[in-house]
Amino acid sequence: MPEPDSAFALHPQLAADTWPVGDLLLSRVLLMDNARFPWILLVPRRAGLREMIDLPGVEQAVLSQEIAAASRVMKALFSPDKLNVAAIGNVVPQLHVHVIARSERDEAWPKPTFGFAPPVPYEATAGAALVRRLAAAFGGITLSAR
Amino acid sequence: MPEPDSAFALHPQLAADTWPVGDLLLSRVLLMDNARFPWILLVPRRAGLREMIDLPGVEQAVLSQEIAAASRVMKALFSPDKLNVAAIGNVVPQLHVHVIARSERDEAWPKPTFGFAPPVPYEATAGAALVRRLAAAFGGITLSAR
Repeated sequence: MPEPDSAFALHPQLAADTWPVGDLLLSRVLLMDNARFPWILLVPRRAGLREMIDLPGVEQAVLSQEIAAASRVMKALFSPDKLNVAAIGNVVPQLHVHVIARSERDEAWPKPTFGFAPPVPYEATAGAALVRRLAAAFGGITLSAR
Repeated sequence: MPEPDSAFALHPQLAADTWPVGDLLLSRVLLMDNARFPWILLVPRRAGLREMIDLPGVEQAVLSQEIAAASRVMKALFSPDKLNVAAIGNVVPQLHVHVIARSERDEAWPKPTFGFAPPVPYEATAGAALVRRLAAAFGGITLSAR
C-alpha cells in the first residue's frame, strides 16, 4: 500500500469537533468531543475521498481491518451493549467512519446518536486522559509527523 | 469459507420489514419495504451474530466485499449524492448492514434515515420490479434453496 497522501488535510469541521488520537496505517483516529457517548472516528488519510468504495481495493481491506480494530478497542474500553459502525457523511463530505460504543443506559438508546442532542465537550483533563487510554488501546499510536 | 449456517434464520422483524432479493456468498440481500428511500440490507447467514467483529476474520473480509458490491449496485441503480452504510442494530439484534442511496432531494436529507418517518410500503408491482432490478444488478442472485 502506498504511503498515506501528503495532500490529505483533515476537514476543518472534523478537526473542530474532535480530539486527535493517532494514526493507524491508513486512518487517523479521532475522539468525538462529546462526553455523552464514547465515540471515535476513522478518517482515511487520502485526499478527496467521499465513499468507502472510492478507495482502491487493497485500501478498502485495510480500512475494514482498521474498523475491526477500532471496534475491538471500543469493546475493550467501554463494554458496550452494542457497537454502532457507520459511514454517513451527508454533512461533512470527507470520508469518515463512526465507531460508537452504545449502552442500553445511554441517553439516546435505542436511537442512533447522530444529531441526537448538542455535544457536551469533555473537560480538558478528562478528554486528554481518554485520548491517552485510546492511543494505548490501539497499541500506542501517535500522530504522523507529516 | 464454510457454507452459510443451516441454523441461520432471518429475524422475524427483518422479514416483516423487507422484500427478499437473493443470497450472496455470505449475506442475504433484502430490500427495505420503504419507498421513501432506496435502501437495502445485508444479513450474513450465520446464526447468533450481533457485531461485524463476531464474524471470523475471513468472513469479515467477505462481508466487506459484499458491502462494497452492494454500494456499487446502489450507486449504479440510483446515482445517489451519498451512500450511507451502517451497522446499528440497537433494535433488531441480528447483525444487519444498511446500504442506503441518499439524494440531496430526499425528504430526510441531510439527516440519517433511521427512524425518520414511518415507512411507506412499495406498491406490489413496483416492489417486485425493484427486487428484479436489484437481483440483476447483483449479477442474477436468487435465494438459496435452504
